[in-house]
Amino acid sequence: MRIALVGYGNVGRAFARLLDAKRSVFPFLISGIQKRNSSAINLAGLHVDTPINGPRLDVGDFLDQCQAEVMIEITTLEPATGEPAISHIRAAFQRGIHVITANKGPLAHAYAALCQEAMLRQCQFRFESTCMDGAPVFNMVRNCLPGVDISGFTGVLNSTSKVVIAAMRDGKSMEDGIREAQRMGIAEADASYDIDGWDSAAKTATLANVLLNANRTPLDVDRKGIGRLTPEKLEDLKSQGKTVALVSRAHRTPSGELKMRVRAEVLPETDILASLQGTSNLLLLHTDLMGTVGTVAITPGVEQTAYGLFSDLVDITKSL
Amino acid sequence: MRIALVGYGNVGRAFARLLDAKRSVFPFLISGIQKRNSSAINLAGLHVDTPINGPRLDVGDFLDQCQAEVMIEITTLEPATGEPAISHIRAAFQRGIHVITANKGPLAHAYAALCQEAMLRQCQFRFESTCMDGAPVFNMVRNCLPGVDISGFTGVLNSTSKVVIAAMRDGKSMEDGIREAQRMGIAEADASYDIDGWDSAAKTATLANVLLNANRTPLDVDRKGIGRLTPEKLEDLKSQGKTVALVSRAHRTPSGELKMRVRAEVLPETDILASLQGTSNLLLLHTDLMGTVGTVAITPGVEQTAYGLFSDLVDITKSL
Repeated sequence: MRIALVGYGNVGRAFARLLDAKRSVFPFLISGIQKRNSSAINLAGLHVDTPINGPRLDVGDFLDQCQAEVMIEITTLEPATGEPAISHIRAAFQRGIHVITANKGPLAHAYAALCQEAMLRQCQFRFESTCMDGAPVFNMVRNCLPGVDISGFTGVLNSTSKVVIAAMRDGKSMEDGIREAQRMGIAEADASYDIDGWDSAAKTATLANVLLNANRTPLDVDRKGIGRLTPEKLEDLKSQGKTVALVSRAHRTPSGELKMRVRAEVLPETDILASLQGTSNLLLLHTDLMGTVGTVAITPGVEQTAYGLFSDLVDITKSL
Repeated sequence: MRIALVGYGNVGRAFARLLDAKRSVFPFLISGIQKRNSSAINLAGLHVDTPINGPRLDVGDFLDQCQAEVMIEITTLEPATGEPAISHIRAAFQRGIHVITANKGPLAHAYAALCQEAMLRQCQFRFESTCMDGAPVFNMVRNCLPGVDISGFTGVLNSTSKVVIAAMRDGKSMEDGIREAQRMGIAEADASYDIDGWDSAAKTATLANVLLNANRTPLDVDRKGIGRLTPEKLEDLKSQGKTVALVSRAHRTPSGELKMRVRAEVLPETDILASLQGTSNLLLLHTDLMGTVGTVAITPGVEQTAYGLFSDLVDITKSL
């Protein structure tokens, strides 16, 4: 099966390494890689070390030339619009190419429309790595929870906030915490996307769109970040055996109304929602038949995000 | 699809109710129910309220008469041997009947042999409800973690110990805690199976047999229960921000040696392993490609165990 990678940063390289390592059992082949300013195409297969020094192409031309059967969209997130990822995904569906993305922008901004386009073209559309760094969430619901109705979810899904809150509990400043998260490679240079709750809101909208049929965007999430927390407040809570976590929640009320919110919630230190450190994350699904059940991932990194793409790829081949 | 229930207690009744509720979408039909001293057979379908007042039959005759395509084995666990469930499962496989069980005895005592018999007869063998009350574990590994090698696991899987430890942390006696667990319907009249770690050891052997190809029994698990804990010890730990959980662990060493143990482990109160209360449970899998990833279930009950049987049933129909 021929795969085109659109975007090629740390996740893309980890994914290419993973395919190289697993090729004897899973015969996937990367026939094209497109970066911001360059590309490489080889129908016999590209490897992790292949130089990428061809010209940058229009994404449609690129997909045509590498004869892709699956496009993996892993460009950098543009959180306010979901572009250019949405356009890339549309270009793939128009050609009958299946799509896997690790980019939550398209799901947060255009999930319902993209699903419809995928269905029209009989394409598969997968996105396991968007919310929990590759841990089974969407594939678990699809493959392991038959007949279940999901009424809501609760998640602790943002890494930077965990590092910053842990630092402030130790008396350090928010800026110290942000620098620590940056050193760990978790936070961007501009950490406000995490601190103000936008990352959590985008994940909340993504999960709500997929699991609760929400058809909303991150702007619809009732959102407050951790920006107003102080070391003094957190030390005071610590003395009471409490802490704070940036929690994503969504549910449908019995009348069908959708509620989505992101909040810095005060929790007992012993609460499972407070137990996640660093990049560890947890998502609990509230269901009718299976009660409250969820997935936890302990300190996932870029290798796990790459594995999420791989698991989507295997899942697509099974469904064809 | 015709289903035979062998064993019909709380889980069996919850399962029959679930099938009645979901029949319009999932057309499964219970054609036979066998209890300890009676049976009922009706090829047009039995419901949750059907009187079960026919004679008890030999299990092979019972399966023949109800023309079962799937047997659901939910007799009471006989932990030391796994019988009579193992014999029931063999009788089904001999007739080419698929098997689902919520009974960890057969997996803890005869998993490899039963798998071989299932393969010979081209039967499916499923057991999602054995270790985590129906939450996706085995089906998650099968369906959502392709290509992954599992090197070990860590689980907090026993309910009674959680209730007893919580009681003793509040200064109550072990006996008080056991009575509380009995009132909640979690602990048996003889709670030593839980307190001495046998339930955890059986789950450890089951998970190791399936996930680590162990071919061992609960007797091979290095096991210490919570029997020597005292309220004083737990109150002392509490003052240090620590607590105890009965933890199941197994891993393969790099040389391939299998280690399995059950221990009352001292943990920080803030550890995710210490965060589960009552029947809530957590299993973390240690893997090569997906790092440490797991499933958590919050206060599951008999309805969730029944759902695990249902999810196995749907998974079997998909694999046929």
